[in-house]
Amino acid sequence: MKFTIISLFPEMFEKVFGTSMLWKAQDRQLVQFDYINLRDFGLGPRHQVDDTPYGGGDGMLLRVEPIFAAVEHAKQSNPDAEVVLMTPKGKLWEQADAQKYATAGKNYIFICPHYEGYDERILTLVDHQICIGKFILTGGEIPTMAVIDSIVRLIPGVLGGEQSAEIESFSDGDNYEYPQYTKPAEFRGMKVPEILLSGNHGAIAAWRTENAPTKPAED
Amino acid sequence: MKFTIISLFPEMFEKVFGTSMLWKAQDRQLVQFDYINLRDFGLGPRHQVDDTPYGGGDGMLLRVEPIFAAVEHAKQSNPDAEVVLMTPKGKLWEQADAQKYATAGKNYIFICPHYEGYDERILTLVDHQICIGKFILTGGEIPTMAVIDSIVRLIPGVLGGEQSAEIESFSDGDNYEYPQYTKPAEFRGMKVPEILLSGNHGAIAAWRTENAPTKPAED
Repeated sequence: MKFTIISLFPEMFEKVFGTSMLWKAQDRQLVQFDYINLRDFGLGPRHQVDDTPYGGGDGMLLRVEPIFAAVEHAKQSNPDAEVVLMTPKGKLWEQADAQKYATAGKNYIFICPHYEGYDERILTLVDHQICIGKFILTGGEIPTMAVIDSIVRLIPGVLGGEQSAEIESFSDGDNYEYPQYTKPAEFRGMKVPEILLSGNHGAIAAWRTENAPTKPAED
Repeated sequence: MKFTIISLFPEMFEKVFGTSMLWKAQDRQLVQFDYINLRDFGLGPRHQVDDTPYGGGDGMLLRVEPIFAAVEHAKQSNPDAEVVLMTPKGKLWEQADAQKYATAGKNYIFICPHYEGYDERILTLVDHQICIGKFILTGGEIPTMAVIDSIVRLIPGVLGGEQSAEIESFSDGDNYEYPQYTKPAEFRGMKVPEILLSGNHGAIAAWRTENAPTKPAED
């Protein structure tokens, strides 16, 4: 599975994708990351990628030509890849989407916008518009990391026996994982619930079901 | 405003927080980032930070002692800082939360869990439990980046005249930003809507209101 990332700041991904699970997935040759610096497709001697909005307004917008050039370049070696745009107007990303992408057998090209926004005509290139949450970020880089992390960890072979996706939060809607405890059995007077030390698997399973939260924590 | 980040992989933050808006915010001395490597507070010669869950189950959990030691270390120089835990069980982060944190005048210590989860007793240290979306990630690092990016860009003085938070998506609930266009006026036959070139500010404002999406894009 190949992810191509189009960004003005591809160096942001190095350490994030070079650490922990995402590093292992590459090491096991289960995923591959390619980076395209949008600046390389900028216009003129200054490699311009942005310009002011028609009709007025604050900030700069990404121009259409560099994005088209970068996506067309990416598709030369990867013609069937689907194009994903990170945008506040996109579909809200959920665990079920991660499951779908992890098993779709497709490659993806992620466009990471920056600045105030992008020329709307780039949507003619885009197969999927995705948003990770109802908050505004400076660029598409961090949400791209989040979406790709959530997908890659579900690719068969990536997590191995380390983790079981079935018992996790959100894997089947809004359920939340039960409270967990590890050693020591007592820390500063706080004890692990005794039932968890009992070895009684039926009682432990019942306790976990009873004690799983049914709604998120309050702030 | 100071953010202290407790993570097993602090190197993940370097380039992300050293680029673009987040770099500028530090350069202007409006924010400061400190990193604590949780491994430094691990137990024994191997600096162990995790162990198997009581009562059985897959994966490893973060133990309580290293987290307590790391948070207490962070609080020595920053006693009033509030402690934030990134967790799938947390309150869903929204733009209104980013606004609140950006203007609260507080410092924050972010705990980034990893592996299968954490010993529930760490919650006695925690002021805020936050979740960025209904999907599962490998660790708390990427969601911490998202939350901090969304806060820092709203700190007065960070964005300057570059961007106006008022007209953005989600700043007042579920509204979405209108379509935007920049030069060229025509690209491969696709033209910018003529009204945006008209200079008629009233007509442009009306067009923008009419054409702003009322719901997210379909996948």
